[in-house]
Amino acid sequence: MLIDLVAFDADDTLWHNESLYTNGRQRFRALMQVHGFETPPEELLDEIEIQNIPYYGYGVNGFVFSLIETAIRVTDGTIPSGALLDLVQLSKDMLSAEVQLFDGVQETVARLSSQYPLMLITKGDLRHQQSKLQRSGLEEYFRFIEIVSSKDAGTYARILEDAGVSAERFVMIGNSLRSDILPVLELGGWAVHIPDPLTWSHEIVGLPDPAPERFFETAHITDLPSLLERLG
Amino acid sequence: MLIDLVAFDADDTLWHNESLYTNGRQRFRALMQVHGFETPPEELLDEIEIQNIPYYGYGVNGFVFSLIETAIRVTDGTIPSGALLDLVQLSKDMLSAEVQLFDGVQETVARLSSQYPLMLITKGDLRHQQSKLQRSGLEEYFRFIEIVSSKDAGTYARILEDAGVSAERFVMIGNSLRSDILPVLELGGWAVHIPDPLTWSHEIVGLPDPAPERFFETAHITDLPSLLERLG
Repeated sequence: MLIDLVAFDADDTLWHNESLYTNGRQRFRALMQVHGFETPPEELLDEIEIQNIPYYGYGVNGFVFSLIETAIRVTDGTIPSGALLDLVQLSKDMLSAEVQLFDGVQETVARLSSQYPLMLITKGDLRHQQSKLQRSGLEEYFRFIEIVSSKDAGTYARILEDAGVSAERFVMIGNSLRSDILPVLELGGWAVHIPDPLTWSHEIVGLPDPAPERFFETAHITDLPSLLERLG
Repeated sequence: MLIDLVAFDADDTLWHNESLYTNGRQRFRALMQVHGFETPPEELLDEIEIQNIPYYGYGVNGFVFSLIETAIRVTDGTIPSGALLDLVQLSKDMLSAEVQLFDGVQETVARLSSQYPLMLITKGDLRHQQSKLQRSGLEEYFRFIEIVSSKDAGTYARILEDAGVSAERFVMIGNSLRSDILPVLELGGWAVHIPDPLTWSHEIVGLPDPAPERFFETAHITDLPSLLERLG
């Protein structure tokens, strides 16, 4: 078999994640309206969120701190502070929200786990990612779990070295070209892109044209078993 | 040599951490006073912080969300929201604060790194812990880094298994009896307690009496080289 290790991204690859943030922004807009304020432009929200990444990284905490900051700034501090308690509650609701798997994930991951060692490689808040994995019902299928603060070629190289697997025998599966696909192709590994319609604008990058070798794309995670067999 | 792996806790063992939170609470009290509100009792702050741990875990984000929640609650939502922007700024200041090593840490860690493989085992926010380690100037001395969401016997057992080290050839050094010392003694490992005067009340637990075997205590990290030599 050509493949020694099969790795999955988690957020927006195995389970819904971006929809939580979309819903969070809706709650934020509704809150502003209820208190008689105009909805801040999406661009301002994006801008403040991106400015805050060096402090908070990616995840619910930075998202909600950015909403609070935006609400105070665009209202010149006139939004009642009681409204901001609803945003603190939003952070708790997001952190404890039910984990909703995409269709076909459970069967596919279970089936692949009997054929390959599986690894989860996910970026974000350590505690929140562990909690989601536990609640997903998928934990038992993954032999290795890597929760990292950035997913660049250096991170993947370190993971492969620790696992004693060479890149040409490694395949990474995920929804983000920037985080899951390009760094793995750069190292000489295989990558399967499962696009997600809701991927955050900050994540969108182009793919080289023509498409690189060892790159595959599918809309359905259930295609993976036959796809990986063709590699192996 | 009896010891195959020497592990350190980070916060309040290698560098100041609790003092950041003490200063954060001082800024919070000053902020309440400036806006004409009474200082909430410390017990209420503790209570809200502990209630929020299941959501945020340990770290700056949960601490500051708890301060915001407390400020809104104790003022019945009458604190101006502009004041809360100062608390968002507090979170950024804490996350980017200079890392201040305790006296003797740099020399001691450097010296031990030439005699033993060193591991850092620290609990908390992944990104923040990595950032502090990078800024501490100590990263080069640690062969292994483990950033974990809880420090119980199961966590240490998993770490030792991954490292291929048996507990009786492992020593853990830290300021927290609950997180650094007791779980390691439970597994049959060695532990050196370096008490910190500012340890958070939530962390205080008793030590069995008489003191367990393989347990040592010292006020000075510079005592470690001779102490470890006596074990080995």
